[in-house]
Amino acid sequence: MKYSKNFYTIKSNESIFDSIVDEKNKIGYYKLPFQNCEDIKSFASTVKQKHIAVIGIGGSSLGTYAIYDFLKRTHNFEKKLHFFETTDPIDINDRIKKLDLDDTLFIVISKSGTTIETVSLFKYLHTKTTINALNCVIISESDSKLTQYAHANQMETFEIPKDVGGRFSVFSSVGLLPLACIGVNIEELLHACRDVYSSFFNKKEEYSELMEKARFIIENKHRFNINVIFSYSSALEGFNKWYIQLWGESLGKINVNHTRQAFTPIGLIGPVDQHSFLQLIAEGKRDKTVTFIKVLSREDSTEIPEVPLIGLEELNYLDKLSFSELITQQVDATIQAIDEMNDVPYDVISIQKINAFSIAKLMFRYQLLTSIVGKFVRINTYDQPGVESGKIILKNKLKN
Amino acid sequence: MKYSKNFYTIKSNESIFDSIVDEKNKIGYYKLPFQNCEDIKSFASTVKQKHIAVIGIGGSSLGTYAIYDFLKRTHNFEKKLHFFETTDPIDINDRIKKLDLDDTLFIVISKSGTTIETVSLFKYLHTKTTINALNCVIISESDSKLTQYAHANQMETFEIPKDVGGRFSVFSSVGLLPLACIGVNIEELLHACRDVYSSFFNKKEEYSELMEKARFIIENKHRFNINVIFSYSSALEGFNKWYIQLWGESLGKINVNHTRQAFTPIGLIGPVDQHSFLQLIAEGKRDKTVTFIKVLSREDSTEIPEVPLIGLEELNYLDKLSFSELITQQVDATIQAIDEMNDVPYDVISIQKINAFSIAKLMFRYQLLTSIVGKFVRINTYDQPGVESGKIILKNKLKN
Repeated sequence: MKYSKNFYTIKSNESIFDSIVDEKNKIGYYKLPFQNCEDIKSFASTVKQKHIAVIGIGGSSLGTYAIYDFLKRTHNFEKKLHFFETTDPIDINDRIKKLDLDDTLFIVISKSGTTIETVSLFKYLHTKTTINALNCVIISESDSKLTQYAHANQMETFEIPKDVGGRFSVFSSVGLLPLACIGVNIEELLHACRDVYSSFFNKKEEYSELMEKARFIIENKHRFNINVIFSYSSALEGFNKWYIQLWGESLGKINVNHTRQAFTPIGLIGPVDQHSFLQLIAEGKRDKTVTFIKVLSREDSTEIPEVPLIGLEELNYLDKLSFSELITQQVDATIQAIDEMNDVPYDVISIQKINAFSIAKLMFRYQLLTSIVGKFVRINTYDQPGVESGKIILKNKLKN
Repeated sequence: MKYSKNFYTIKSNESIFDSIVDEKNKIGYYKLPFQNCEDIKSFASTVKQKHIAVIGIGGSSLGTYAIYDFLKRTHNFEKKLHFFETTDPIDINDRIKKLDLDDTLFIVISKSGTTIETVSLFKYLHTKTTINALNCVIISESDSKLTQYAHANQMETFEIPKDVGGRFSVFSSVGLLPLACIGVNIEELLHACRDVYSSFFNKKEEYSELMEKARFIIENKHRFNINVIFSYSSALEGFNKWYIQLWGESLGKINVNHTRQAFTPIGLIGPVDQHSFLQLIAEGKRDKTVTFIKVLSREDSTEIPEVPLIGLEELNYLDKLSFSELITQQVDATIQAIDEMNDVPYDVISIQKINAFSIAKLMFRYQLLTSIVGKFVRINTYDQPGVESGKIILKNKLKN
């Protein structure tokens, strides 16, 4: 067999690293940790409204939601974030009911500026309340039609840089503005990103860990074509959804050798999904890698009390155990069970605490991992050509 | 090659049908459509509390949640259902805040009666309010420790038959009781199940459709090891979760020939996931079958208004379109795009209306499909031995 020039060989870690170093000057998301966000903070400090409604779909909302979902239960935010993304009318009207329309700031987000779902929702909201420069702000590319609309209406605008794709935009104004409005410390988010960035580019811990993980995933991609994240905290449900978009949309591509790639993301929540998906991991076909995410400190001392329940005495060993300890024991027991199977590849990510720093670190790390895997398999990680045909068909249907 | 007696050959549809006919007298869920549920209805009619809290995990809550989630936005239920399943303390306390504890009926559900999560939560709730026969009812196997507790406290009990597994129990008291309490027409649910049942066992429409689908899935299981459901309604998010448990836990098994099976469920919601997972379906490796679920009539006339937005005139073709029509066009456009790819196997399930009958029909159908696929691949569809080792490890950790 004669190898053609294009024949697929897995490059060395060194050469992949070099191409990431090269890419970091071309792809916008690498620069976001170093941005100046004074304008965002100063706008946020003037917001009086109690409700913040994000009108945006996919990359325009998933990242913000991931961070909000992670923090909302433990941080007493004074304002409430709402997300409008679907075109399902039942869902739309249900969500509008939860707003006080006179006390809502609308943040309309669309990179292209002409996303059908976002514009439809935005138009509909005009029938519910007066929308003007006092209660609406626009986030879009600087020369989009939506930004044009904003200028025509003297609305405040924030820019999504052209070289920052939707699913890599959470640390641009897309995520930072709504999060700053409800009081999230956005400097802390960027600080965490910079830590990951410098550890990776200085070839410290993040470099070795991410390279090792990426290499395993790609060397075994045909055997383990499914990548499961098993998050042991309900607060990570939003993160799981964000991960699914990041991984699926970035890596679901045809590569330079015209080969379809094989990485399917799945997001699970523990311990609930021990009662659902775990059986499949344990006894199903060996086609999955599993990444456990565990929270080390919950700072919550809620305990299972010593309540004698007649008949249920055999469970008295639970008495006086804290729920934090119980869930930690649950993740450890599941990891041990998987470990003892010997043929399910897994790793464990530990999160120190439920705070802005932890979630930003986790997310920036996953963006880097996605970029590295993309380089290894020689795809364009940052486009999404596969969804264009559906969009064109829809447009034609609607115009006729 | 000499074929051993056990060598795996795919049996004929006829012989699979015969074994299902045989199984329906042994496995309890087939009998549920024909049960008498007067006791459930009569109990439900006496419930005064406004909040109904289901304490149960996995099969004890996912089915009920699926039906509630499907109906809650369009049906004005006078009572509210709440679900307590995780041991994550932050989540538990967050959910408790949403109850009026003096106006809550607790329904504690555990088939075995000794589920760690359920008993822990139940104990904890005792520190929040007085729990007694006036505000608590127990659903469990008739001779479980939990039922024993109920008897000792003169609490009302409902039975989960021993031959009905958790993930097949939604049409037993597990699902019917909480749903009846909030006013769902449970006779309508059972009526829909009976329709599917008789169509299948009389070899009408459901027989041919389910057999064809099951056969395709198993004949191509190594090629298409992932089964995606793409539901075009936010109201089907609960159904997706229920499907994931049903499919994953039932079919993730080692079969009679000691071969690990290969069926991984994924649940998507449209149009949102067009902006997330669709790219992977469109351009990723051909390892997925896709089932679209579309709602034919939404009985909702919410329209995109004729609001002139300066700059965005190119989207004026959306004006006066109803959101119901838009989402229908979106699913049709996505189906057409997938169809034109020619190598992604898909099918379409249509739901007439958002009502109790439709969701029960869909769910009973999926239970049958799961049973049929299980027969084809020669596994025990109804057990879950793979999660036992983790449970034992946990118990040992906690006792020491």
